[in-house]
Amino acid sequence: MINFKENIDKEVTISGFAEKVRNLQWVQFIVLRAEGKRIQITIEKSEEKNKEMVEIVNNLTNESTIKVTGVIKENEKVKMGGMELIPSSIEVTSLSAPELPISITNKDAAQIDTRMDNRFIDLRNDVNFYIFKIQTEFVKALRNYLYKKDFTEIHTPKLIGAASESGSEVFEVEYFGDKAYLAQSPQFYKQMAIAAGYEKVFEVAPCFRAENSNTNRHATEFTSFDIEFANINSYQDVMDLEEDLLIEGLKAVKEKYGDLIKEKYNVDVVIPTKPFPRIKLEDLYEKLHEKYGYEIPDHDVGDMNAETEKLTSKFAMEEYGHEFIFVTDFSKTKRAFYHMRKDDVPQGYDLIWKGTEITTGAQREHRYDVLEKQASEKGLGEDIKFYKDFFKYGCPPHGGFALGIDRITMLLLNLPSLKETMFIFRGPNRITP
Amino acid sequence: MINFKENIDKEVTISGFAEKVRNLQWVQFIVLRAEGKRIQITIEKSEEKNKEMVEIVNNLTNESTIKVTGVIKENEKVKMGGMELIPSSIEVTSLSAPELPISITNKDAAQIDTRMDNRFIDLRNDVNFYIFKIQTEFVKALRNYLYKKDFTEIHTPKLIGAASESGSEVFEVEYFGDKAYLAQSPQFYKQMAIAAGYEKVFEVAPCFRAENSNTNRHATEFTSFDIEFANINSYQDVMDLEEDLLIEGLKAVKEKYGDLIKEKYNVDVVIPTKPFPRIKLEDLYEKLHEKYGYEIPDHDVGDMNAETEKLTSKFAMEEYGHEFIFVTDFSKTKRAFYHMRKDDVPQGYDLIWKGTEITTGAQREHRYDVLEKQASEKGLGEDIKFYKDFFKYGCPPHGGFALGIDRITMLLLNLPSLKETMFIFRGPNRITP
Repeated sequence: MINFKENIDKEVTISGFAEKVRNLQWVQFIVLRAEGKRIQITIEKSEEKNKEMVEIVNNLTNESTIKVTGVIKENEKVKMGGMELIPSSIEVTSLSAPELPISITNKDAAQIDTRMDNRFIDLRNDVNFYIFKIQTEFVKALRNYLYKKDFTEIHTPKLIGAASESGSEVFEVEYFGDKAYLAQSPQFYKQMAIAAGYEKVFEVAPCFRAENSNTNRHATEFTSFDIEFANINSYQDVMDLEEDLLIEGLKAVKEKYGDLIKEKYNVDVVIPTKPFPRIKLEDLYEKLHEKYGYEIPDHDVGDMNAETEKLTSKFAMEEYGHEFIFVTDFSKTKRAFYHMRKDDVPQGYDLIWKGTEITTGAQREHRYDVLEKQASEKGLGEDIKFYKDFFKYGCPPHGGFALGIDRITMLLLNLPSLKETMFIFRGPNRITP
Repeated sequence: MINFKENIDKEVTISGFAEKVRNLQWVQFIVLRAEGKRIQITIEKSEEKNKEMVEIVNNLTNESTIKVTGVIKENEKVKMGGMELIPSSIEVTSLSAPELPISITNKDAAQIDTRMDNRFIDLRNDVNFYIFKIQTEFVKALRNYLYKKDFTEIHTPKLIGAASESGSEVFEVEYFGDKAYLAQSPQFYKQMAIAAGYEKVFEVAPCFRAENSNTNRHATEFTSFDIEFANINSYQDVMDLEEDLLIEGLKAVKEKYGDLIKEKYNVDVVIPTKPFPRIKLEDLYEKLHEKYGYEIPDHDVGDMNAETEKLTSKFAMEEYGHEFIFVTDFSKTKRAFYHMRKDDVPQGYDLIWKGTEITTGAQREHRYDVLEKQASEKGLGEDIKFYKDFFKYGCPPHGGFALGIDRITMLLLNLPSLKETMFIFRGPNRITP
């Protein structure tokens, strides 16, 4: 999209949506919206040369798309940026039906379900539209950081032969008379890349969870940014990389969209300082009890729950003035079998941001015999034989993590739910559009 | 990975695979392989300070992973780059079982199915390993080109409610007691982005085809690079963008890996000149008949088949000295209902490279009434109502295309099959590892 200001007194051709068409006695106005930017088009009805255009605008409905050629003129009386486009021709490239199913300017006038049914209109609202401009910038910065560090991008299969990580919560697919499943994460396959000799890999791809729960932060399909890299000394190296990566992403977003995010979402993008605070789960429990009288429920001991996460962020902000906090030393009973353990303590972490867990990361167990023992303890056998084999013929120490980019975007822009955040949301009751 | 040459006479720490361990009477050699690079490690057995290391290497199996600290020394007698690493310490980070299931150096010693079963070892072969280094570079260049042009990255759902584009060849998913399907392409959703007001979008994501065929260029799951953009004048604009994009990708690959590709794959990466030749299908038929006596079979008239594609590339090379050729003006009976037509001719193209179709692109039909007519003609109704609705409330003219990045990589490196090309292949008989 051209920069309007830089083209004052020049002839331009602009295509976009006729957001608002007003037909007054002597003049016609159109607010043209193109990629979130707006300019007023002004047509004097009395001018003979405008006759054909006036006729076109007489029949123009809001949200039709038009292609306009004209000159951009300064006009301090125009509220919209102090300029207007004086057209010499208008072509209607598509005519909208007169009544829209939902409002664009007031997105909250409709129920979220009606909005999702009409997501292609809902996204025309600025607050929704910019989500994916901002997310693009964030993900671009993450990728570019990894490219610079010589990471290899992989594309791992989503159709898998065995319901691997956990039997439940896996979608079943009819596969030529047999059964296949949808991958819940690329975990096993990014580790396969390490065993194959790739030292650093990443993947951005969908994950699938057949979880029948309706919270604001769960979806049955979401996009995961997955990272795995070799030759680490401990999971501290994994946290270090994640810090750098998030700083890189937030810096890029703030630079390009910081003001817009403040204006449209009322959020200050904060670039976190290094290192992020790091605390052991036991110490955290103690602090939360001391400061807020919080007691972790018995069935969650060794782990966190939604309330713990919320309080942890409050604590991080009050104690360290930091939006992020790493929590380490979870119970082995609450962590996956493939997390490396040291003195029985999983060598991994959760990263909490704005009251929500955004990452689980860890050093992985790469020693075949230890891995086999840990898998058996969790009752995993034949189904993951193919995975255990990755560690039989040499595999270096390694670790990694995953970031759900929908969830990160939700927190970044302070959106209330993934239903608002995702391009198209998928949940137990939502498989359309 | 550090550059060995730049570190001569310096102390370094290198981690990697002990590709070949040789234990001679007076000396031990290890070929260390790290991210496709190799260096010889030399240990003099007689030296007292090496005692512990000698013991370690005595028990070291090929393909174990080690972490070595030492000094890189020039030594013109060493065939491998005229240098060697004289270690002061060796740590075994994982010990490989002594017998590998397949050969690394001679990949063709095993059947392709055995190789796929052991893909994590198969990928250690250089020819296989570099596929994803090269693909990473190619895809990075494509993305960066689009970022510069202000494209928005989208992530569209792979779980869909209706078997949309075509009823057959769609995988069925058990969805909370109901049925869902796996998306064959993001076509409808990238067009939804256009209707939502995004002028330019792209997505890199898996596509799923339940096609029970076993050719060298089909897979049931593959990665598609999808592009869609608005305000085009015709499908010529779509071809123009695709030319620029491919040139960008091939340039980046040639610059970073041109020599390696020549050495390992015996392929010259050619940067194509602009414009690529463009020919109408009717004229192509005539040329192929004239030059090669080729007649298109009756059931393929209006379209191309594998043989036509092969001859078309031969023709492009002989007639234009060009590896690429756009073929336009297919029959409407052979093209999707959503391709725009002009005088009944679909406004789209196939792009042929090295004897194979790599893209179908087109201007899309954005006029609701015309789209509805074309859909009915193909017998499509209720299932795609949600899609047709995208065009009811304003949608600008637009077009786009998709590139299968696995197929492109296969052709780029002259690999015989997608089974060789994909990180992990999926076909009707192949759902593991």
